[in-house]
Amino acid sequence: MSPKDSPQFFVTSGPIPGSGKTFIQSMENPDVKVAMREIKLEGGEDPLVVYDCSGPYTDGGTKINIEAGLKPLRRAWIDARGDSESYDGRIVKPEDNGLKPGEESSVTPFPAKTNRPLRAKDGPVSQLAYAKRGIITAEMQYVAIRENEGRKTAATGPRDGEDFGASIPDYVTPEFVRSEIARGRAVMPTNINHPESEPMIIGRNFLTKINANIGNSAITSSVAEEVDKMVWSIRWGADTVMDLSTGTDIHNIREWIIRNSPVPIGTVPIYQALEKVNGVAEDLSWEVFKDTLIEQAEQGVDYWTIHAGVRLAHIPLTANRTTGIVSRGGSILAKWCLTYHKENFLYDHFAEICDICAQYDVALSLGDGLRPGSIADANDEAQFAELDTLGELQKIAFSKDVQTFIEGPGHVPMHKIKVNMERQLEACGEAPFYTLGPLVTDIAPGYDHITSAIGAAMIGWYGCAMLCYVTPKEHLGLPGRDDVKVGVVTYKLAAHAADLAKGHPGAIIRDNAMSKARFDFRWRDQFHIGLDPDTALKYHDETLPAEGAKKAHFCSMCGPKFCSMKISQDIRKDAKDKAMAGMEEMSEKFRESGGEIYTKTDAAE
Amino acid sequence: MSPKDSPQFFVTSGPIPGSGKTFIQSMENPDVKVAMREIKLEGGEDPLVVYDCSGPYTDGGTKINIEAGLKPLRRAWIDARGDSESYDGRIVKPEDNGLKPGEESSVTPFPAKTNRPLRAKDGPVSQLAYAKRGIITAEMQYVAIRENEGRKTAATGPRDGEDFGASIPDYVTPEFVRSEIARGRAVMPTNINHPESEPMIIGRNFLTKINANIGNSAITSSVAEEVDKMVWSIRWGADTVMDLSTGTDIHNIREWIIRNSPVPIGTVPIYQALEKVNGVAEDLSWEVFKDTLIEQAEQGVDYWTIHAGVRLAHIPLTANRTTGIVSRGGSILAKWCLTYHKENFLYDHFAEICDICAQYDVALSLGDGLRPGSIADANDEAQFAELDTLGELQKIAFSKDVQTFIEGPGHVPMHKIKVNMERQLEACGEAPFYTLGPLVTDIAPGYDHITSAIGAAMIGWYGCAMLCYVTPKEHLGLPGRDDVKVGVVTYKLAAHAADLAKGHPGAIIRDNAMSKARFDFRWRDQFHIGLDPDTALKYHDETLPAEGAKKAHFCSMCGPKFCSMKISQDIRKDAKDKAMAGMEEMSEKFRESGGEIYTKTDAAE
Repeated sequence: MSPKDSPQFFVTSGPIPGSGKTFIQSMENPDVKVAMREIKLEGGEDPLVVYDCSGPYTDGGTKINIEAGLKPLRRAWIDARGDSESYDGRIVKPEDNGLKPGEESSVTPFPAKTNRPLRAKDGPVSQLAYAKRGIITAEMQYVAIRENEGRKTAATGPRDGEDFGASIPDYVTPEFVRSEIARGRAVMPTNINHPESEPMIIGRNFLTKINANIGNSAITSSVAEEVDKMVWSIRWGADTVMDLSTGTDIHNIREWIIRNSPVPIGTVPIYQALEKVNGVAEDLSWEVFKDTLIEQAEQGVDYWTIHAGVRLAHIPLTANRTTGIVSRGGSILAKWCLTYHKENFLYDHFAEICDICAQYDVALSLGDGLRPGSIADANDEAQFAELDTLGELQKIAFSKDVQTFIEGPGHVPMHKIKVNMERQLEACGEAPFYTLGPLVTDIAPGYDHITSAIGAAMIGWYGCAMLCYVTPKEHLGLPGRDDVKVGVVTYKLAAHAADLAKGHPGAIIRDNAMSKARFDFRWRDQFHIGLDPDTALKYHDETLPAEGAKKAHFCSMCGPKFCSMKISQDIRKDAKDKAMAGMEEMSEKFRESGGEIYTKTDAAE
Repeated sequence: MSPKDSPQFFVTSGPIPGSGKTFIQSMENPDVKVAMREIKLEGGEDPLVVYDCSGPYTDGGTKINIEAGLKPLRRAWIDARGDSESYDGRIVKPEDNGLKPGEESSVTPFPAKTNRPLRAKDGPVSQLAYAKRGIITAEMQYVAIRENEGRKTAATGPRDGEDFGASIPDYVTPEFVRSEIARGRAVMPTNINHPESEPMIIGRNFLTKINANIGNSAITSSVAEEVDKMVWSIRWGADTVMDLSTGTDIHNIREWIIRNSPVPIGTVPIYQALEKVNGVAEDLSWEVFKDTLIEQAEQGVDYWTIHAGVRLAHIPLTANRTTGIVSRGGSILAKWCLTYHKENFLYDHFAEICDICAQYDVALSLGDGLRPGSIADANDEAQFAELDTLGELQKIAFSKDVQTFIEGPGHVPMHKIKVNMERQLEACGEAPFYTLGPLVTDIAPGYDHITSAIGAAMIGWYGCAMLCYVTPKEHLGLPGRDDVKVGVVTYKLAAHAADLAKGHPGAIIRDNAMSKARFDFRWRDQFHIGLDPDTALKYHDETLPAEGAKKAHFCSMCGPKFCSMKISQDIRKDAKDKAMAGMEEMSEKFRESGGEIYTKTDAAE
């Protein structure tokens, strides 16, 4: 793209096959209308309402204009609180885009930018500050409805699951949302300068969330690709998106992404700070970093990964590791610390970082710069020393009304996963945990979305609140569009498996709808209920493309004679016919012959 | 393919990139030479020896001739025992190929067939019979070497893993193999009429194994495709292959597969029996079934799934299920039982089935015809009633010297997996467990290799001995070649993750080799050590195809400035240089400032 060309944006929009948007209005607050996805079903079945991260892009009735950005859903709520004010924002400098003075970014600035950001007038404007004061915000009302996934009443009956001490309610109320935030057990990343975002919550007593990483690297990709990747990843279910761009044009790319994103956007500010000092870790300073935070807070970044736990004293603990330090941010800071033999400036200035966060409601994702990068290094001293520091920092942030969650590994064999969750809960006051996988083996490059989904599902079950996706390209290269989709769907299924196992009261509804569609041979419903209708349809149609096959009582896997479900149905039908023909006597014999395991009298039904 | 045309076979052969065959000779028996895969490494690293299921197809020095079949590796061992005799085998009938009298199969019979099968002269010729008598066979010697994966000595040091009561040895000896078989805790499927097979063992104290299903359905695919799928699936790591063909030509297809398979072949004989009665379940009889068993035993099928646990009395327990009976065999037998209101003839004739098995050393895989087909039906009464019956049957089979393992689910949410393993061990006398997945959620058609790999890794960790793969086409259609590969690699990584978590002493060697290659930026070694070198190379080269990038200290994911491993290396190098320049004093300061967490004095290394 040449400088000043208008970027050509092609994002995927339109409804997901078989689905439409539905809006559920809050009873308490008519301004809160929660966008959900409604899957229409055949055979007289009620539609299925599911959680929806995809924003207006999947709303057939909404015109998408990337150059204008999304409507500021939350603006009125923020304004109504009257505790923030707009001001003349920081002027964008060439180095914000990794350029030298006088150079121009090859990425056109977002056209509708006003540069009048908001910040707190007096005290913190974070959801945590409100929650502590007992205030239920519109954002909390929104989230409560969203988390119930269309359920109008509380679940009844015994809970089927093992939740390891979580406190998942039968029904989510706005007050429950508030109370979880107030005690630091849940986080809503909601920068007041990102009013376009639809509120969502991260915490182990809510649905398990997933994050997708996007962002260019110095090697490849453009702004149009990255905006498309954001839209593409939320289409398939990313609850938050981290923009991990490095190289030039970071500021401008991020603006395009935020203005068009209905999900919270996270970043790792040290990446941009490093670009500002030409990639020389030794030239980093608190001043450059702080300036970067202000820049990003004004843009509307919703959460920051801050590697303040990489303390000088921890670094030698990595000396005998097989794979050293594998966090980009962690390694940069380690280099800085060792160069000057000084404490990490993020640790030293942590209180100031919190003060900035509280002014804009940027949440903190305390980064695990010393996470293990291999099975060999899992659960080592360096990792847990850092975790304890993150626990300290969480307490500081909480006291300053900053919403905080904690990042975790990484690479961990299955038998060492649970203790990660337990130690995190203990060290960090139950603040939400946010892990990358973990990968349960190192030997499958090209399949690390799967090696990590195994660990992700397990740690999600144990209580991890958000799972950072891994794509098939992990360890090999920058993910493309297809990789992003595979990563998102894989993590969505892992998160859902975790919710099922925890006994989340809403989780099994979708599984049951799928199973019933299977048994009824409603093929289209099976595709539509699934996480990826397009792929399911494509796979089915590879062998049976005819329209008639969409209602056939078999598929190509077993063929018509060997379909167990068809035979099962035949059995039930036969049995029913016989019963109707007065063969109650035979049914009686059934029962007698079966002895005590004949516990049902409706065997023939 | 027109009748009598010679099938055109195209199978993938040649070494896996970066690997060669190596043979490890037994110290006790020079006739036992175990084929292993040796991965050559760069940078002066020792080659890595790994388990190899792929047979002669990956041996660059071996000419493959599908029409001649593989060399009968075990023939001399079988003959030397002198307890079996050849005889005039059963004559192949048109109905064996699902045809009417006078019709000819469209699949050419395997040319080199002699129809002089072996059977026991006197008592059982099973590995279990030998093991009980204290005999260590050549097969057991082979397996012992194979399971050590090139390790020449026992593992030392503490075991890093949680094995839930398994008894995994530090080093596998032939005597250990014998003792595990003798107590029914492990199985070697080794039909004496399949001498082409390379011995392998299934048991929870050995490496976790995986099975790949192939086979045509009435809808699609040919013999050439199925032989290719067999060769293709073992190339990527299938330890056994089940031929689940239905429709016509079953007998002839199977002959081609067995004669060319170095891994055990399993079948579900009821499928062929049903074809013999034109697909009418009601027309099945013990006589047709028994004839099918003899036919398949003579061909060399190594193990059979027998749904003898689907008892008449269990069927009503499925009446209120969401997805009824989802096992093909289970549903067929349920239909038969209900039609005649009679006990399952496989249950009634189970002792006779065992007698046939013992004559040929066919192992039994006791099928779970009532396994759950949905999360809703997991762990229900029907499933566990059948499991208890399988436990009864296992005892009968064991008393008749028949090697036996037990099939398990299916669809199970994570929190209900462990009890499956526990109940199986208890009900079935620690006989090996062999599960299909389980899938941990129903909502991801197109991704069920992943939903099931999560459950598979977990149950493998808990003690499941063999994992039956699931492909991306599950619930949608018959898997093709690409699906087979993805399914196999996915299950291979799940099985390996299980071995790691159990603390199998050989498992972590490969992970560590990978991690070291990563930290050293030996890109080619990373591809070669991985389970799928082709895909890893392809993914890497999508963005950095140049030869120089194979030694570059970064990849396109983070780019050169942001590679954490490069920075880690720089840090270590810097620190070392400084230390060499006499900066021991500085190192000393490090230690002081760090307090108690500075536990290592080689921080600068």
